[in-house]
Amino acid sequence: MSELIYVGVDLGGTAIKVGICDQEGRLLHTYEGPTETDKGVDVVIDNIEKYVRHIIEQSPYTWDQLVGVGAGVAGFTNVKEGVIILAPNIGFRDVPIREILEERFVKPVKIDNDANVAALGEAWSGAGRGIDNCVCYTLGTGVGGGIIINGKIYQGFSGLAGEIGHIAVVPDLEAIQCGCGKKGCVETVSSATGIIRMAKDAVERGDRTTLLTVEKMTAKEVFDAAKAGDEVAARIVNRAAFYLAKSMSAVAAVLNPEVFILGGGVANAGDILFNEVREVYAKFTPEPLQRGVSVLPAQLGNDAGIVGAAGLHLRS
Amino acid sequence: MSELIYVGVDLGGTAIKVGICDQEGRLLHTYEGPTETDKGVDVVIDNIEKYVRHIIEQSPYTWDQLVGVGAGVAGFTNVKEGVIILAPNIGFRDVPIREILEERFVKPVKIDNDANVAALGEAWSGAGRGIDNCVCYTLGTGVGGGIIINGKIYQGFSGLAGEIGHIAVVPDLEAIQCGCGKKGCVETVSSATGIIRMAKDAVERGDRTTLLTVEKMTAKEVFDAAKAGDEVAARIVNRAAFYLAKSMSAVAAVLNPEVFILGGGVANAGDILFNEVREVYAKFTPEPLQRGVSVLPAQLGNDAGIVGAAGLHLRS
Repeated sequence: MSELIYVGVDLGGTAIKVGICDQEGRLLHTYEGPTETDKGVDVVIDNIEKYVRHIIEQSPYTWDQLVGVGAGVAGFTNVKEGVIILAPNIGFRDVPIREILEERFVKPVKIDNDANVAALGEAWSGAGRGIDNCVCYTLGTGVGGGIIINGKIYQGFSGLAGEIGHIAVVPDLEAIQCGCGKKGCVETVSSATGIIRMAKDAVERGDRTTLLTVEKMTAKEVFDAAKAGDEVAARIVNRAAFYLAKSMSAVAAVLNPEVFILGGGVANAGDILFNEVREVYAKFTPEPLQRGVSVLPAQLGNDAGIVGAAGLHLRS
Repeated sequence: MSELIYVGVDLGGTAIKVGICDQEGRLLHTYEGPTETDKGVDVVIDNIEKYVRHIIEQSPYTWDQLVGVGAGVAGFTNVKEGVIILAPNIGFRDVPIREILEERFVKPVKIDNDANVAALGEAWSGAGRGIDNCVCYTLGTGVGGGIIINGKIYQGFSGLAGEIGHIAVVPDLEAIQCGCGKKGCVETVSSATGIIRMAKDAVERGDRTTLLTVEKMTAKEVFDAAKAGDEVAARIVNRAAFYLAKSMSAVAAVLNPEVFILGGGVANAGDILFNEVREVYAKFTPEPLQRGVSVLPAQLGNDAGIVGAAGLHLRS
């Protein structure tokens, strides 16, 4: 086989996932091993090298076919310099990961944050395949985002483009503090954390709801209760969808993307979320900015990060 | 002189302004003649041709040095096809202006809407000179916008990127209808029209203000009254600045631009507007999205449209 391949690394707090992609972004092989964050930065880097070498060795491909290695990580990254500035999950601070890995692999290495690589993965070979311009939301613990312009991640002036979880959409009187230091960000209501908070508030103030488990509540329980007819849960889901859609309407007025892709755990709620999002988006967005625009669920699930990281060499 | 030149056309309802720019976006010569909209589409097009030929003939440059002609127009344009879809001010509907003018000039022709070419003019040789990524607001009768990415106008999926006047920022209870069909757009409060409306409302309901002239009020009168200590006028200016800054905060979370440029008649208000905008922007924008980011007044005034139109051949 003489085709070119790309390796993507999803560097998480518990596991390092690696994968081999072809030039069309098809994920051909995957491998996963423990991060061993507790053993320190050097061991984590040794593990990345070990797993990347292993997956190539176990595959039908040779090292010569490898164009480069890309890595995505939850945290702040300096894409130009290839430095992980701060990644609390894995205990990295100011680690010049590109330089270190390029020396070991003797191949080009690129990095970016998890929301950007997930967006690129979906744009390359997921829900946004064939689309030049799309905006991806990752609705998880927080609300992450990635802006894809002409098929590539758009970084902005200081690498912060796509921080769409921090669009302020909640009116001042209802707004609560966000982790970013400001109030009313879409992240405070449309993330899993926001949904769980609203559910706990409802239970604690005695709303008539089937929701019970205050200690270890999940966003999925709230969605399941809403689907089963619980009105309080439905109201919470609608509120999460409402503000998410309002932020999308703002994004549309700025960027006029062809496709919005919603991924992450919260997006797994399916129609109950998507129907409401589409309805509110239509209500708040000028008609020309609705025409031909789709709101789609992400397709790659947890593989988006590996695929997008691999794609950094073709599309960044 | 052997240098290359670019001609820009600002196609307005009353006058057609043309100008010659060099490769750095310096405006070397200008000429202006009546549009004669009342005489119909053909006469308007004849006038464009006449004024463009005239300015070259009167200049030290030759037709051979002309790389191309660009035109900006208030209205809906199809940039790819070079068609003015609807420009009410000049009575154009579905006019394939590029094809017509290319046949007459035997030079490449490009078009775009007025907000985009003004943004490009400022980015090329105005307040955004040397900056790759900026966002320009034109605060006039409406609120127009232009997104400059890597030095070029960003069009988006259907040519509607930069419709930032239609970011909804006014809370529902205070929101009024916008011309776009939706409610609460920044255009309803931060345009000259919005400021005048708020001033008329204040006078009509008997607020204690020095503002008087209800019939032919201008935004400049409101700013002058505010500067002279009129509290009602100051409150109106602050409200316009507040929602403008809120929309900028949303834009920053999406695009992370290096510079915001504010132009158009309302921006002429100067410090009384800019100080409030900068303060509110700082209040509602996460700190990393403020760092190194500037909010600057436009520099080219009414010439931005000519310069940006000329720049379409280098930067679009």
